[in-house]
Amino acid sequence: MARVTQRRRVRRLRADGTQRDRADAVAGEEPLEIRVGGRSFSVTMRTPGDDFDLAVGFLHGEGVVGSWADVAQIDYRSGIGADGLRDYNVVDVQLAEGVAPPDPSLERHVYTSSSCGVCGTASIEAVRRTGAHDLGEDAAVYPLPEVLALPDRLRAAQAVFDRTGGVHAAGLFLRSEDGALDLACLREDVGRHNAVDKVVGWALRDRGMPLRGAVLQVSGRASFELVQKAALAGIPMLSAVSAPSSLAVELAEETGMTLVGFNRGESLNVYTGAGRVLAVGA
Amino acid sequence: MARVTQRRRVRRLRADGTQRDRADAVAGEEPLEIRVGGRSFSVTMRTPGDDFDLAVGFLHGEGVVGSWADVAQIDYRSGIGADGLRDYNVVDVQLAEGVAPPDPSLERHVYTSSSCGVCGTASIEAVRRTGAHDLGEDAAVYPLPEVLALPDRLRAAQAVFDRTGGVHAAGLFLRSEDGALDLACLREDVGRHNAVDKVVGWALRDRGMPLRGAVLQVSGRASFELVQKAALAGIPMLSAVSAPSSLAVELAEETGMTLVGFNRGESLNVYTGAGRVLAVGA
Repeated sequence: MARVTQRRRVRRLRADGTQRDRADAVAGEEPLEIRVGGRSFSVTMRTPGDDFDLAVGFLHGEGVVGSWADVAQIDYRSGIGADGLRDYNVVDVQLAEGVAPPDPSLERHVYTSSSCGVCGTASIEAVRRTGAHDLGEDAAVYPLPEVLALPDRLRAAQAVFDRTGGVHAAGLFLRSEDGALDLACLREDVGRHNAVDKVVGWALRDRGMPLRGAVLQVSGRASFELVQKAALAGIPMLSAVSAPSSLAVELAEETGMTLVGFNRGESLNVYTGAGRVLAVGA
Repeated sequence: MARVTQRRRVRRLRADGTQRDRADAVAGEEPLEIRVGGRSFSVTMRTPGDDFDLAVGFLHGEGVVGSWADVAQIDYRSGIGADGLRDYNVVDVQLAEGVAPPDPSLERHVYTSSSCGVCGTASIEAVRRTGAHDLGEDAAVYPLPEVLALPDRLRAAQAVFDRTGGVHAAGLFLRSEDGALDLACLREDVGRHNAVDKVVGWALRDRGMPLRGAVLQVSGRASFELVQKAALAGIPMLSAVSAPSSLAVELAEETGMTLVGFNRGESLNVYTGAGRVLAVGA
């Protein structure tokens, strides 16, 4: 997967005036067009890799597919680059029989949503409408030390970041039979939403939903869109290394999700659903 | 500007099990719909504030307006919330006579671009086509210590971040008559692209373009879209605290921009246009 990172010549300069030219890795970023039934549905800039999971995870967030079985076929058939060769930057999704294609009148809305986090009002309604999973019913609890350990566990598993320092990571932790919280799927991408879509796509393919008792740990901030994607996947806890936005907190509250921010190993903030985090001692 | 940050009840938990409930500030995030000539053009999630600059800066990046004079009127007339009151989440732009409205056939493309960084191929072409400014002709140079000092200067001027830790910042540094590099405009937003759009909008309104000898310093990564926006504003140097993506490097090279990454005060990486950074000593 040479395109996940690229080698570039870089001049490194230090404050003392010393300099060194060398080759360095930068995170790959290429456009991906997602087509549904031959019709262009969305374009996103992403780090190549796990493109089918990205496409299906994205379509799940848009309410187009509810499970992997809703996808009849998925391939790269349409992407032909300027050189006449397949460029692997177009994913073609054929929906299964009986699965309604995206409403063309929603197209604008869909483009919006691939953007920044979806038009707020409309999307809060969309989550209420399509959110099949009642997170409030998920009785999962998490001991505080377990939650505090998640960022380090995510970081330790990151491969691309170690080389480029330029990608977001999303890790899905699932509770195993013996009670351990295992890192089941880690994805990295130049776009934070893409990393989450890739994780959701993997979960649709490998596990199904809702993801009871799971935690989605992300490397950066918790935006509205990330809360929305997690809620639609039935994930009861989202934990972020950085800050949440006001709308992220609002949506987490409405959906019954536990939202953790500033999870830095030594301490964390719980913005909503604090009952799920079990503090020991004190 | 109560909506720039919001107070939320937060539970802070420490590894030793101590906990404290208190009110904390989170970064405001609300949808903004940009209408041109009464027609919806784009929706973005943004931190409220400097919305007119954001709208015009965004339209500049899309090639709709070339200068502030291309805007006949801009106001919040259409945004009426569920409570019947003006909600200040819709900006209406009326273009000046003779300014072509956005091509409806480009709407998809525009939605794409509000997203993640614009569909790659099409946008690289768009920059080539609409990039009126030849950055290669900008003879600006910057002593290394000056460039290394930019992140600290940006950080020192950040107000919202100090309260929320949850926003991106973009600062435009301009060379003054006496040779100093001054922070002329700083904007913060939950969306990195919005922060840059707000800076570009300010520059269109207050200065005009190209922004010769300027530096755009950003708090996070350098994505393709940020390089594109800076190129269209005629800014010869983009400096980022974190990593650039592969497509960002590629576009910076094509447009003759100097692209600095991992600018951490003690050292930095120059990915393109290294001749503009003057190392002293060594």
